[in-house]
Amino acid sequence: MFAYIHREIVPVEKAFLHVSDLSIQRGYGIFDFFKVQDGHPYFLDDYLDRFYNSAASMQLEVPHQRDDLKSIIFSLITKNNIAASGVKMILTGGYSADGYQPAEPNLIITQHHLTLPGEDQIKNGVKIITHEFVRDFASAKTINYSTGIWLINKVKENQAVDVLYHQKGIVSEFPRCNFFIVRNDNTVVTPAHQVLRGITRKNILKLAARKYRAEEGVVTLEDIANAKEAFLTSTTKRIVPVVKVNETVIGDGKPGAVSLSLLNDLIALENEDFQSKAN
Amino acid sequence: MFAYIHREIVPVEKAFLHVSDLSIQRGYGIFDFFKVQDGHPYFLDDYLDRFYNSAASMQLEVPHQRDDLKSIIFSLITKNNIAASGVKMILTGGYSADGYQPAEPNLIITQHHLTLPGEDQIKNGVKIITHEFVRDFASAKTINYSTGIWLINKVKENQAVDVLYHQKGIVSEFPRCNFFIVRNDNTVVTPAHQVLRGITRKNILKLAARKYRAEEGVVTLEDIANAKEAFLTSTTKRIVPVVKVNETVIGDGKPGAVSLSLLNDLIALENEDFQSKAN
Repeated sequence: MFAYIHREIVPVEKAFLHVSDLSIQRGYGIFDFFKVQDGHPYFLDDYLDRFYNSAASMQLEVPHQRDDLKSIIFSLITKNNIAASGVKMILTGGYSADGYQPAEPNLIITQHHLTLPGEDQIKNGVKIITHEFVRDFASAKTINYSTGIWLINKVKENQAVDVLYHQKGIVSEFPRCNFFIVRNDNTVVTPAHQVLRGITRKNILKLAARKYRAEEGVVTLEDIANAKEAFLTSTTKRIVPVVKVNETVIGDGKPGAVSLSLLNDLIALENEDFQSKAN
Repeated sequence: MFAYIHREIVPVEKAFLHVSDLSIQRGYGIFDFFKVQDGHPYFLDDYLDRFYNSAASMQLEVPHQRDDLKSIIFSLITKNNIAASGVKMILTGGYSADGYQPAEPNLIITQHHLTLPGEDQIKNGVKIITHEFVRDFASAKTINYSTGIWLINKVKENQAVDVLYHQKGIVSEFPRCNFFIVRNDNTVVTPAHQVLRGITRKNILKLAARKYRAEEGVVTLEDIANAKEAFLTSTTKRIVPVVKVNETVIGDGKPGAVSLSLLNDLIALENEDFQSKAN
């Protein structure tokens, strides 16, 4: 596998950063991640928009114009030639002279084999737990996941698959996924504030609006308990039905019709995106 | 200059981490930093206590027992042989297979020439600004400084030297320093909660208690405005008098007698520590 670093494509085994990099010194950096199938990056422009926006929010300059960055991405995925993969772009604060002041950012692009959620997660749904926390710079995709990683063991101990953040009962997001509920009147709702605006989240809002009422709004822990369905979304996971939050069973405890219908619509939208670019 | 990494002492120019390290992937790691003079690390046991505690808080295991770690530190400072320096130990989440799960931690030890605050900062005091923020895992010295670094430009624009965090007017700490006020009755007070317990902070509390009343408690922005003196403390800065917070002048706008007296006491305590170990 090859990676892009220091303006070169090199075997990933040789992709190193000096310890003066501000990601190592101060956890300072942003990133993004998109899916690639047979050389086609899905919804690439949406991911690049977010990548450039995260960089600007954190006062980092991407060292390439958008078209150049696209060329680099296509060179890399052509060279690696994997059927199904994820591509990660990391932009760090650079090699800092004093370990605090940002310098010229380092851009690293890596490609990974993709692991989709198991069939049983779609069929049976998953359990999640909750934790009181709000990310700093919630609208930027920074590399700071201290709380998410710190909670990995707690998630496992509770036989859950992920942890949903809330503040005083108002829900926001998972460390790496967005969250939706389906109300009893079939309205599809996702938290509006203190969240990273996921590309899958955006697509689901668009798809849901075609069949149901869809809104960004306030979602409380109580709203979840009263919901008919709940699900999480992410680039790699697409939609995974959530059937239990802590010890509370959602709806009838099974993946719901709206969640599964939206998952099919999302797969269709991905196919559409794949076809449109292939022509 | 030499550094310790991957269980070896190497020229710092050769100190690299693979991009799969969890500090680069997810900003996950802890660190500590102490001062060294002529081969003597000041208050080393206090810093090692905190380093091991931060590691435990963040579920990371330091790959060496305390005595072995001390031996490595002394080998490194002997080899580098600098009169006045700072030593930084970073412990990261290690080379993660999936970019999220912690692995075997990487330990990096680097040594740096020391920059003390300028004479004019002690003579005239400094201006600081304030910002509403609380660090995650405030009692652990994690590498997450996103907010502090993001505020660097704001600090400069305001002709300030640092930014003091508060939450709803209750003050905690600077990104890299602790904060003290001196009340009109000469009580020396430092915020008790949501702070990193600095070694200099601890020493100042001890020294202040010999001459004045000293306490850890609640400090509000209003308390600062009404204080006679204010100062910041850190390993490298020792004590720097604060004479202006945003546009509010503290006391008579000059470094106060209590602050300067405690600075002298701290220098004396450092000398004592230096002598005791030299024997």
